[in-house]
Amino acid sequence: MKQIKTEIIAVGTELLLGQIANTNAQWISEQLALQGINVYYHGVVGDNLTRVKDTFALANDRSDVVIVTGGLGPTDDDLTREAFQLMSGLTMVEHPASMEKIEAVFAKQNSQMTPNNRKQARVFKDSLVFHNPVGMAPGMLVHYNDTIWIFLPGVPREMKAIMVDEVLPILRKELNLTEIIKSYVLRFIGIGESKLEHELKELMEQQQNPTIAPLAQSNGIVLRLTAKAASEDEAIVMLEETKANVLAKVHPFYVGMNDETIEQSIINNLKELKLTLASAESLTGGKFIEKIISVPGASEVCKGSIVCYDESVKRDVLGVSEEILTSYGTVSRECALEMSKNVAQKLHSSIGISFTGIAGPDAVEGKPVGTVYVSVFVQDKVHLVEKFELIGDRASIRHRAVMKGFELLFNLLKQNLFD
Amino acid sequence: MKQIKTEIIAVGTELLLGQIANTNAQWISEQLALQGINVYYHGVVGDNLTRVKDTFALANDRSDVVIVTGGLGPTDDDLTREAFQLMSGLTMVEHPASMEKIEAVFAKQNSQMTPNNRKQARVFKDSLVFHNPVGMAPGMLVHYNDTIWIFLPGVPREMKAIMVDEVLPILRKELNLTEIIKSYVLRFIGIGESKLEHELKELMEQQQNPTIAPLAQSNGIVLRLTAKAASEDEAIVMLEETKANVLAKVHPFYVGMNDETIEQSIINNLKELKLTLASAESLTGGKFIEKIISVPGASEVCKGSIVCYDESVKRDVLGVSEEILTSYGTVSRECALEMSKNVAQKLHSSIGISFTGIAGPDAVEGKPVGTVYVSVFVQDKVHLVEKFELIGDRASIRHRAVMKGFELLFNLLKQNLFD
Repeated sequence: MKQIKTEIIAVGTELLLGQIANTNAQWISEQLALQGINVYYHGVVGDNLTRVKDTFALANDRSDVVIVTGGLGPTDDDLTREAFQLMSGLTMVEHPASMEKIEAVFAKQNSQMTPNNRKQARVFKDSLVFHNPVGMAPGMLVHYNDTIWIFLPGVPREMKAIMVDEVLPILRKELNLTEIIKSYVLRFIGIGESKLEHELKELMEQQQNPTIAPLAQSNGIVLRLTAKAASEDEAIVMLEETKANVLAKVHPFYVGMNDETIEQSIINNLKELKLTLASAESLTGGKFIEKIISVPGASEVCKGSIVCYDESVKRDVLGVSEEILTSYGTVSRECALEMSKNVAQKLHSSIGISFTGIAGPDAVEGKPVGTVYVSVFVQDKVHLVEKFELIGDRASIRHRAVMKGFELLFNLLKQNLFD
Repeated sequence: MKQIKTEIIAVGTELLLGQIANTNAQWISEQLALQGINVYYHGVVGDNLTRVKDTFALANDRSDVVIVTGGLGPTDDDLTREAFQLMSGLTMVEHPASMEKIEAVFAKQNSQMTPNNRKQARVFKDSLVFHNPVGMAPGMLVHYNDTIWIFLPGVPREMKAIMVDEVLPILRKELNLTEIIKSYVLRFIGIGESKLEHELKELMEQQQNPTIAPLAQSNGIVLRLTAKAASEDEAIVMLEETKANVLAKVHPFYVGMNDETIEQSIINNLKELKLTLASAESLTGGKFIEKIISVPGASEVCKGSIVCYDESVKRDVLGVSEEILTSYGTVSRECALEMSKNVAQKLHSSIGISFTGIAGPDAVEGKPVGTVYVSVFVQDKVHLVEKFELIGDRASIRHRAVMKGFELLFNLLKQNLFD
């Protein structure tokens, strides 16, 4: 098959002023890559008729598919249609269904529609019009010379909805793509990216389909497996096999697949085991519990937290003994152990987890920045504490401490402690 | 003065695969806009010699200044130098100082330098070489025909260091920019973007220099004032005058300038007034205290928090009375008031703030999703509660609730309650 050359053009002066990044091009590129469609160029051009027209003319010469985002709105700065018309000579017509929709929106808001809003319903004659489920301006596809032109709104939410619902399926048809592309996202924790790549080096090198590619993320390490196949069923068989090969090498670090993040996995495990959780947080300042609670359904298993940023709160609210505070200090194994046990007891939870340490910028109690203790208490089962020496600035140390807490808890919940 | 046409080109297939967004172009555009330099195009091209060469040839024809990021590294995929040479015919030479630096890095790591690393020290003859303070590949500036070409590494940290240290000052000289551009960032809370624009409409329309432009941010509303002047002193006089005109209209909503975010401003006010803060958080789940604690220096004024996600924690740890819980429910004025008072007393803080409400997805106690109460207690001074009906998904409602808390607290601290 001939290589399809695709180009993505964003129209908008706000991009050239640096007010926003061109994340639309990134997202579209990612979607196209998953279909096996090659993107050759991204371009950004401002709201200037001549420059947009020239950019379109170049794209028409060199690309098979051109996807344009932005410049379809109602204002005088929205010039995408006009520039394409100038380049192509194609006729524009009003699209009745889009016009009705725009009129309905204004009627519903009880506001007067200004004439420039009619602009948004104008489409090229013989174009395929894409319904915009979340905004007013429709998208469209039009053939010109031998190039497929696709026009989409610049608002990411609108662009994405039209891409997923309409553009991707139609492009597959237009380009005669018979292969299915399907991905698995595998999530890991407790293993660095370079270690993971080292363990999987041979597998990654030998493996062409599915491909195995690491993606660095702030919440742990992620691998993407991508299979090309004649059908979804076939792709799944291939992905399952590759997944099994990967896990044979790095299973102890595996968290879950696709949307199953470590927080989600912890919540699921807690639900299944009918356990509840509470945290006592010093340097993390509520970051651990905040992330846990951001998962819908956390309320079933999450009691709450005592954020004991000040020493007096460790003593008076959490009940850490004066002796521990004076003999060992707040940043110590002993204090962390006491914090995890006490918070479980005070909040009547089956599990207590605690964080104490130094996020910086200054050392505390003679201990260097980055010293962090994390402790987990499970009534009658476990009472452990681990010391970490984390690197980075204040925000990174706090983030890494939370990730260490997730890792400890995740590993404990995997064990058969709770039968 | 003739308009300078600038173009930014990123070289790298990873951008066309959508693995990263072209944030380099955004950042460079923002810096250039602050210098009054107009960017006309952004382009992205993959690691392909012919396509990079063609992209360079077009840029050379249409632009006065071209800034290229990426493709200067040691691998075979790094083709920026080769493509430019192919286009221009300029000679490449080894830059001795850069070569010495690369050799020193390998010597220090006790590792063998592979021959391809020499590539990174190659520069165009007669180019101005920019020292890379944080990486191995230097940047450079070279004149070709009537265009100024600037080559920078693609790693954002390296690119930014070279831009700030060397490129911007040299560009000012090369382009004969005598004017200074200076900005103030003014932060507001408690006023919507459209309301702010409405209040300032006349001012924004009349005002050419400094310009007044709104920037939407998730932590409140931000205006940027940008002045062009012959000197920094003159720019400051102009900015101060415009700032005074702006604040004359919307002073009640003004938070602070530049780095003074609302969190920072709250911490500063608390320090000045020698007050301390604690929170009791239900739906916000620690998000409020987490944001406060992320400000360095928060430890002086921030005691901590009781995250009472579960009803039992409200009762047993926070001491909300059984009567309130059964008569009014956890999502009620009465419960919020009790929470703010009790957390201040239990954590020995001068101020207590509380959050209770429904983030969704499901309604609770017959109250709709988005119902939120925020209460502030100040011993002997204030005990207030406000009800909000917030819209959005779970994450937005939690975020907006925290912002409402910031706003309430900020406004209280501005009053002369604490003399």
